[in-house]
Amino acid sequence: MCELLGMSANVPTDICFSFKGLKERGGRTGPHRDGWGVAFYEGKGVCTFKDALPSYESEIARLVSDYPIKSCAVVAHIRQANRGRVSLQNTHPFTRELWGRYWTYAHNGQLHDYKDLPVARFQPVGTTDSERAFCYLMSELDKRYPNKPRSRKAAFRFLQKKAKTLQQLGVFNMLLTDGEYLLTYCTTKLHWITRRAPFGIARLSDVDVDIDFSRETTPKDVVTVIATEPLTLNEQWHKMQPGESQLFRYGEPI
Amino acid sequence: MCELLGMSANVPTDICFSFKGLKERGGRTGPHRDGWGVAFYEGKGVCTFKDALPSYESEIARLVSDYPIKSCAVVAHIRQANRGRVSLQNTHPFTRELWGRYWTYAHNGQLHDYKDLPVARFQPVGTTDSERAFCYLMSELDKRYPNKPRSRKAAFRFLQKKAKTLQQLGVFNMLLTDGEYLLTYCTTKLHWITRRAPFGIARLSDVDVDIDFSRETTPKDVVTVIATEPLTLNEQWHKMQPGESQLFRYGEPI
Repeated sequence: MCELLGMSANVPTDICFSFKGLKERGGRTGPHRDGWGVAFYEGKGVCTFKDALPSYESEIARLVSDYPIKSCAVVAHIRQANRGRVSLQNTHPFTRELWGRYWTYAHNGQLHDYKDLPVARFQPVGTTDSERAFCYLMSELDKRYPNKPRSRKAAFRFLQKKAKTLQQLGVFNMLLTDGEYLLTYCTTKLHWITRRAPFGIARLSDVDVDIDFSRETTPKDVVTVIATEPLTLNEQWHKMQPGESQLFRYGEPI
Repeated sequence: MCELLGMSANVPTDICFSFKGLKERGGRTGPHRDGWGVAFYEGKGVCTFKDALPSYESEIARLVSDYPIKSCAVVAHIRQANRGRVSLQNTHPFTRELWGRYWTYAHNGQLHDYKDLPVARFQPVGTTDSERAFCYLMSELDKRYPNKPRSRKAAFRFLQKKAKTLQQLGVFNMLLTDGEYLLTYCTTKLHWITRRAPFGIARLSDVDVDIDFSRETTPKDVVTVIATEPLTLNEQWHKMQPGESQLFRYGEPI
């Protein structure tokens, strides 16, 4: 299995604090040694850092956890390989372009019979069940909307339905974003928290670090963080139920 | 204008030495302050670092120039904006997937009437002439070969012809790779050098650094480096002519 981390925010926000917790699970406090990756959106642009090394000993992960890259949408993943060998091509998150936007996705879980999932315009580069499922979702989206739909929200609602069909093939916890919307789907484990004023102090569960968000934010900031397991000890995270899906836009659940 | 840097090699090789020279041109020895990016292939996988900051003061660029990421195909770019504002979405290199492979591209130059270039399956995300030209090339390739061709070399020969038509719209110096082949096209400025045994010492022109390649390589290594301007002082670089194109595969000109 793997661990997911996502962020949706209404102002460009860095994810250093949460990523610091996550990367420890990549080989130190957790068994996810088989690579990691994180995608940051700035507007419609996206920058993705990936490494097939364990995150807790990756130089690139150290940079990402120390260097405040500000973003309104982030998708991160640390991997414990099951389907597909350890390599860069099999490292999440995966990105494809559709309708002049980059779509980025990461998956936690394991699917059976995934090789039969029909893909058309979008083809997997690597050999994971995860990337095949992503190419399936994007191919279905392209088939349903051969031209850019007026409402991307409707496109995400369509993806929610398609994610439900993937659940029948196994464990499918997922994050998918176009930089503005962020879709979550849970079949076993996914938690989220929306932080807004008044902001308090949060304490990481994986390393001895705390942060006073009131010093880092303005009263208008709304920031949602999504993670496989809660990353902090002293806050109330929303635990998603099997089959539950939640769409976020600029930090707000919608 | 911008500066390009590419590498094609028959063994995974780091580009730290060449990148060290290039990044100085991003705001210190050169005027290219408007972002930079570099894509490294590991097999079919690709990892791209990008930053809208000048490379000479970018933390990410410092990491890339110090941290030996080994790759057989690299495309890098530092930008001086002309078409399209300074932003991540307009930062090269650009990547798209076709036939289950990632294609990565960077451009130096300026095109007129580029908004009329027909694009179909591949749409630009940003607003640069460069990305539009890339989407045009990829859309033409998809139209010419609706299914994966037996020979990717033939696909690159087709791209060479299409690049020639882009030359009619202005300055079009280009690098394009699928991780195995690397295609260059020159209309004004592009140089390359193939290093092989016996390896010697090279001295960078932009910073006071030299390297003894014989200590870093094995006798079988073949490494081609492509750059807008030669990066070293004491070696003979091949200066490409206007309209000249060269395809490389695993370091060898073919």
